Amino acid sequence: MLDNLMQRKSVRRYEKKEPSRETIEKIVRAGQQAPFTAQLYSVLLSRKGRHQFGAPLLFTFCADLHKLEKIMAKRNWEVATNDLSLLLFAIQDAVLAAGQMVTAAESLGLGSCFLGGAPYQAEKIIEDYNLPPRVFPIVQLVMGFPAENPPPRPRYPLEFTLFEEKYPDFSDGEIKEAMRAMDQGYLEEGYYERRTGIIDLEVDREETFTYENYSWTEHISRKWGQWLKDEEEILSKLQACGFNIRGVLGEE
Amino acid sequence: MLDNLMQRKSVRRYEKKEPSRETIEKIVRAGQQAPFTAQLYSVLLSRKGRHQFGAPLLFTFCADLHKLEKIMAKRNWEVATNDLSLLLFAIQDAVLAAGQMVTAAESLGLGSCFLGGAPYQAEKIIEDYNLPPRVFPIVQLVMGFPAENPPPRPRYPLEFTLFEEKYPDFSDGEIKEAMRAMDQGYLEEGYYERRTGIIDLEVDREETFTYENYSWTEHISRKWGQWLKDEEEILSKLQACGFNIRGVLGEE
Repeated sequence: MLDNLMQRKSVRRYEKKEPSRETIEKIVRAGQQAPFTAQLYSVLLSRKGRHQFGAPLLFTFCADLHKLEKIMAKRNWEVATNDLSLLLFAIQDAVLAAGQMVTAAESLGLGSCFLGGAPYQAEKIIEDYNLPPRVFPIVQLVMGFPAENPPPRPRYPLEFTLFEEKYPDFSDGEIKEAMRAMDQGYLEEGYYERRTGIIDLEVDREETFTYENYSWTEHISRKWGQWLKDEEEILSKLQACGFNIRGVLGEE
Repeated sequence: MLDNLMQRKSVRRYEKKEPSRETIEKIVRAGQQAPFTAQLYSVLLSRKGRHQFGAPLLFTFCADLHKLEKIMAKRNWEVATNDLSLLLFAIQDAVLAAGQMVTAAESLGLGSCFLGGAPYQAEKIIEDYNLPPRVFPIVQLVMGFPAENPPPRPRYPLEFTLFEEKYPDFSDGEIKEAMRAMDQGYLEEGYYERRTGIIDLEVDREETFTYENYSWTEHISRKWGQWLKDEEEILSKLQACGFNIRGVLGEE
């Protein structure tokens, strides 16, 4: 089991063969058995057509306060907890179920890959699935039988992730070693050349990278150095789903 | 493997025996191999004394932008993405790793239980672990060798969780059936009587429940109907950790 977990990797090419309804139900049932705060989530499934990477299955994991409110109404209660706190719990519920589905799927020979853009496509997902208010799409997962078998991808050294009793003051050497571990692993696979390409520079900078030296740390720097600058975008997507994050402190 | 996932349950009594450092490292390494958006997390560990439920290990999973900023600085970049968007990704990274650690731990004979209060103890956790700014505690997990073997807890019916192509308009019967499945399972275990007790009514309501009929749906109704009302509390905890959720829309 531990070996299986260590071998996990995202799959970005799929066979045409479709998993049976029985297989899908086994996977989702296993996901449901993950720990939760209050099952504040729902799982949407689309089997229509092909999804990203040619996958036959697309799951959309949503924070779901709609079901909570329906149940609380039957008990003559109304939700009093603020939406931001509920959202932070609901994401955990949704993602724990999703992660356990990934593991369950692998045990049945299926691969999967997360897609992070769901919150930013909220209006389209509301329309596609006829979502009621108080349901917010957090993350998507494509799944199917793998048509590739890539190596497990690198991770930070354990010493850059696990901190006992005290968060360390990183030395230059430790940061560079963490960067080296990630960059070398992705370069060895030829990951960016084969898969995502190089992220364009939107700012006034000269491009000095090629696939010879462009790797994970430059990729994430370009993402988080250029994308999703405006908080209003995510707040408006939350609002479109009936999540009212008011930002009281921001008003002061 | 699927059977193991279906059998998972939170453990709330632990043996005194301490897991070895080697076992801990295996578990955390397996957790690291979970899918991620950008490894925007860190795992704090405390082995000092006994933690909740007598557990020898306490893990605290944090959203971590500090490491990201250190790495981006080496590449001559600054974070431009807004904090709320980053937080929503970072929670996913932290919780996917945590969930995979739960599974890895079970495969080595260890049990675990999540504790959801970490964000609301942010200042204490900052002090205990000497956290730098831009590290926000999301959730904690106690772990150790189980001194109990409770049954797996009930979950919503699959039909109340998985929705293909279209989110349904729940009938009264479907809502009641979901409530019945949860309540009956917890009553059969005597869960609230043995474990958490009944949540007090803070509002002007007559107590009509006993351990004969108090179960999951009443418990979550009292939680989310009474607790964490003020959004300012969670925003102030985020701010204490250097996460600036401004709530621009709220200002309009």
